[in-house]
Amino acid sequence: MAEKNKKPLILVSNDDGITAKGIRHLVETMQRIGEVVVVAPNSPQSGMGHAITINDPLKIRTSDIFDDVQAFECSGTPADCVKIAKNYVLKDRVPDLVVSGINHGSNTSVSVLYSGTMSAAVEAAIESMPAIGFSLCDYDSDAEFDHILEYVERIARQTLKRGMQKGVALNVNFPAKREEPIKGVKICRQAIAKWREVFDEREDPYGRKYLWLTGEFENNDRGEDTDEWAIKNNFVSVVPVSFDMTAHHAVAFMNDEWDI
Amino acid sequence: MAEKNKKPLILVSNDDGITAKGIRHLVETMQRIGEVVVVAPNSPQSGMGHAITINDPLKIRTSDIFDDVQAFECSGTPADCVKIAKNYVLKDRVPDLVVSGINHGSNTSVSVLYSGTMSAAVEAAIESMPAIGFSLCDYDSDAEFDHILEYVERIARQTLKRGMQKGVALNVNFPAKREEPIKGVKICRQAIAKWREVFDEREDPYGRKYLWLTGEFENNDRGEDTDEWAIKNNFVSVVPVSFDMTAHHAVAFMNDEWDI
Repeated sequence: MAEKNKKPLILVSNDDGITAKGIRHLVETMQRIGEVVVVAPNSPQSGMGHAITINDPLKIRTSDIFDDVQAFECSGTPADCVKIAKNYVLKDRVPDLVVSGINHGSNTSVSVLYSGTMSAAVEAAIESMPAIGFSLCDYDSDAEFDHILEYVERIARQTLKRGMQKGVALNVNFPAKREEPIKGVKICRQAIAKWREVFDEREDPYGRKYLWLTGEFENNDRGEDTDEWAIKNNFVSVVPVSFDMTAHHAVAFMNDEWDI
Repeated sequence: MAEKNKKPLILVSNDDGITAKGIRHLVETMQRIGEVVVVAPNSPQSGMGHAITINDPLKIRTSDIFDDVQAFECSGTPADCVKIAKNYVLKDRVPDLVVSGINHGSNTSVSVLYSGTMSAAVEAAIESMPAIGFSLCDYDSDAEFDHILEYVERIARQTLKRGMQKGVALNVNFPAKREEPIKGVKICRQAIAKWREVFDEREDPYGRKYLWLTGEFENNDRGEDTDEWAIKNNFVSVVPVSFDMTAHHAVAFMNDEWDI
């Protein structure tokens, strides 16, 4: 939790790249709360999951894209950006909060695994920093954000006030703008749903085949405590996410049944 | 579970690329158990986490690199390879088992998040297919595998026999070869440890700075039920991994304490 009377230090990153509309809204909202430092990718990194760059060097340079904000653009992934921010840019200063986004597109359900936005937040959680990934369920690069910024600010302030459990980061998703205002905030679990992929096969001008990954999201999880339910019903969904992927319930079962 | 008297269909992938030594050992070991189909990246994908390719087309072509095995090399990530195998290569046939690896290097503890090897297995778990990621804690591209192949086979057979709990994949790590033989197999939880990163700053011939990500693994988790403990003590570690990242213990806490 941030010390009283001290402006909190807030690190901002994303996966759509430093020039995206979503990160600009996030930076401006965080400037109302604390001192902001930005370390974000110099190009879109959507779908990068928790990738890190180990076979190539990383380039980083200062950016003047935001007014009154120390900002850096980096050639790496969102997880790289958090590592660089902590160990190279900020060094001895530890952020009171790390925020990532606002992503152009949903990161509900299993999309949390593919999400660069959430990988920045999870990376921060590994480093014991309170962290939130924000995503808007609207893929339009020119999407409307005005209906959600009040919630972004409130959730960030609440996190600074309450702190975060160890090893946990928040996955926050917002419904796209509708006629009626957002109904409120729900603390949720990740829906057990998946993408049904279809590969669109084409031929290049030289007769070689190539594939585009397409598909539809398919939710058979009928629970009313899921992030999918919340978004569908015009609530903000907040899922606490753990970087401990152990299926603890399976350990005892395997110890009992496996013969190895 | 595989039907009796029918040869099980085993899909093999990895993240070091189709020409790596580790996948060759895995293919040969799986050929002793069932019919093998390989769909693997055409280049190394280490550290790719659960990345998928959504902004570029994917290329796939047949490979004759393995004797008597249907094999394909693909321009995508390990998670892409499993999606392509299921929806494009195999279509109506569903693998009885998906195996990934054998990775050249450890995927214990939080490395599960960065691991391309495990992303293939987790992707298979999302698709309700029993899946195992195998990793050898030896980064040498010419590492010794002979001390572990018996365990690879036994764990694969046990998984086919027992089946897998829904939503679970196995993260199996092997100690590097030592003088004394491996002591046995432990069902473990993921150690709560992390990498302590150091960025090695250099200057290119044109005076521009660039960084290499380096660092040391730091384990402060003193539990004797962790994957790190098992490997250190010359056991094979088997961690059941879930793709549900919800920190379920945090949901009630937040519902109680948050005021939003």
